[in-house]
Amino acid sequence: MPTLHDILSARPHVYRFLQPTPLHHYPTLGRLLGAEVWVKHENHQPVGAFKVRGGLNLVANLSDGERRGGIYTASTGNHGQSIAFAARAYGLQATIAVPEGANPSKVAAMEGLGARVVFHGRDFDTAREWIMEVAREKGGRFVGPTEELLIHGVGTYGLEIMETLPEVEVIIVPVGAGSGACGTAIAAKTINPGVQVIGVQSAQAPAMQKSWTTGTLTTAPMKTVAEGLATRVPFENTQRIMRELLDDFILVDDSAIEEAIRLLLEHTHNLAEEAGAASLAGALQLGGRVAGRKIVLVLSGGNISPARLASLLNS
Amino acid sequence: MPTLHDILSARPHVYRFLQPTPLHHYPTLGRLLGAEVWVKHENHQPVGAFKVRGGLNLVANLSDGERRGGIYTASTGNHGQSIAFAARAYGLQATIAVPEGANPSKVAAMEGLGARVVFHGRDFDTAREWIMEVAREKGGRFVGPTEELLIHGVGTYGLEIMETLPEVEVIIVPVGAGSGACGTAIAAKTINPGVQVIGVQSAQAPAMQKSWTTGTLTTAPMKTVAEGLATRVPFENTQRIMRELLDDFILVDDSAIEEAIRLLLEHTHNLAEEAGAASLAGALQLGGRVAGRKIVLVLSGGNISPARLASLLNS
Repeated sequence: MPTLHDILSARPHVYRFLQPTPLHHYPTLGRLLGAEVWVKHENHQPVGAFKVRGGLNLVANLSDGERRGGIYTASTGNHGQSIAFAARAYGLQATIAVPEGANPSKVAAMEGLGARVVFHGRDFDTAREWIMEVAREKGGRFVGPTEELLIHGVGTYGLEIMETLPEVEVIIVPVGAGSGACGTAIAAKTINPGVQVIGVQSAQAPAMQKSWTTGTLTTAPMKTVAEGLATRVPFENTQRIMRELLDDFILVDDSAIEEAIRLLLEHTHNLAEEAGAASLAGALQLGGRVAGRKIVLVLSGGNISPARLASLLNS
Repeated sequence: MPTLHDILSARPHVYRFLQPTPLHHYPTLGRLLGAEVWVKHENHQPVGAFKVRGGLNLVANLSDGERRGGIYTASTGNHGQSIAFAARAYGLQATIAVPEGANPSKVAAMEGLGARVVFHGRDFDTAREWIMEVAREKGGRFVGPTEELLIHGVGTYGLEIMETLPEVEVIIVPVGAGSGACGTAIAAKTINPGVQVIGVQSAQAPAMQKSWTTGTLTTAPMKTVAEGLATRVPFENTQRIMRELLDDFILVDDSAIEEAIRLLLEHTHNLAEEAGAASLAGALQLGGRVAGRKIVLVLSGGNISPARLASLLNS
């Protein structure tokens, strides 16, 4: 189980290339929720999402042999950009598998960061299994989405929350594979066991939440539009941590997430991707349970496309 | 004439409440411009724009008598939120005049920061003249838009650019009343006289640019949609500084600004208000003059409304 000590050890590797993100207070959002509302702006990161913290810590901790072989992963989203960013920072070659027909703007972003993007297979699972095999053949290092070194790195934003606002009472955090929620909970609960940490997932992709509630790893249908929350098969290591540390884990409907994107735009003038807005959707659903309290909403990422945003603003 | 020394003196007052904003490198924007492109993210400030730096420096430097009388200004935009933020930080009362029918969401934002908002008159000039009179009667401190203490404060972002990327070759900065362009030019040119600083204004509100080009204060028709660039009557003190320090001052069409908002959304996943996007519009227009160089675009603010954004994304 990762500890606050691991997060502290990750910190110099993260701050070598990044700076702490702001935690801003938004009075008009607070009026909406009847609470004191702060937003942790992980959307301000260079690749637009919290994951880059984990990538930098992982790459910093690779052995010389692993560095020479290069790193391999599969992603169509923030994980891929994070690994590409970290590889470039250390002058390593990153190879990222994406399914055929992957979003060209996301491919361009990874290539812009110096990664080699390889198209393979019809879907993400096919691409990932193939690239694991490629990494093995070539003596490269495959990077999975919930490795402990990633959790240690992303936990640095949880620590920043506790340092900036030690009196926080509730932290609401989106859950995809769970690394962000785990890192946050480890930092927050170690420093103040009284702070509540609540996970949020889309009701249209409830595998992690159902596994948490039932205590058994459970797959579930995955139909959400929220790419960062789209987990079909739950991850055992993050489940174990979340079962120990989360106070609650709730589901919000995709339609509530879309409304939260609009509200964040209006009240904070920040772009949120679907996963990033899930924390506000969760707070709105919790209602009376957060009223009158000091709450932090983790805006985990802002990578939404102009087309998607246009359709949201017109619906 | 303000100096780098003034900016350094402002810095502790600014950093008492704010942290440096990121300067991010965007490879895909760079491909578009054939240059190495960095964006200075003043849209990440707590009130969404660079001006808050100036407000904090001004309020920190008030005398006890001025603090007791409270501060008064007129604004429907970022200046008002900046003054409200700074007043709250120091526990002072801010009174902000807006014209009747002012945008309710901007009024709510200023009230959320603890300011008293007073509606008066049909337009901004009427509201401003009235509140100057009120301040005089009540013994309060009226705050104008281009006071030197504001320039010293906003100059801290120019200094951050030079500290983070000392090898920068061109900085492109939007001009409204000119405080941002002045602060940037003072910091940049003092540290490296070889860096080019280029101002950008909307062709639909060219008063400052025409005054700069002709060497004579010149009013001009003001029809721009870019609120932050909407200066009808030029300011003498910022003109004087810009005449000495800007390498060029160009006009971009409102339609080019709108396209730049869309491009920033796509390539950086950041919201820009019209003024904030003018720097990218300027770089695109400069074309060959920035090709192959290291350039910084100042994204001065992100306060655009959801309705305006929706209409932009659909045009």
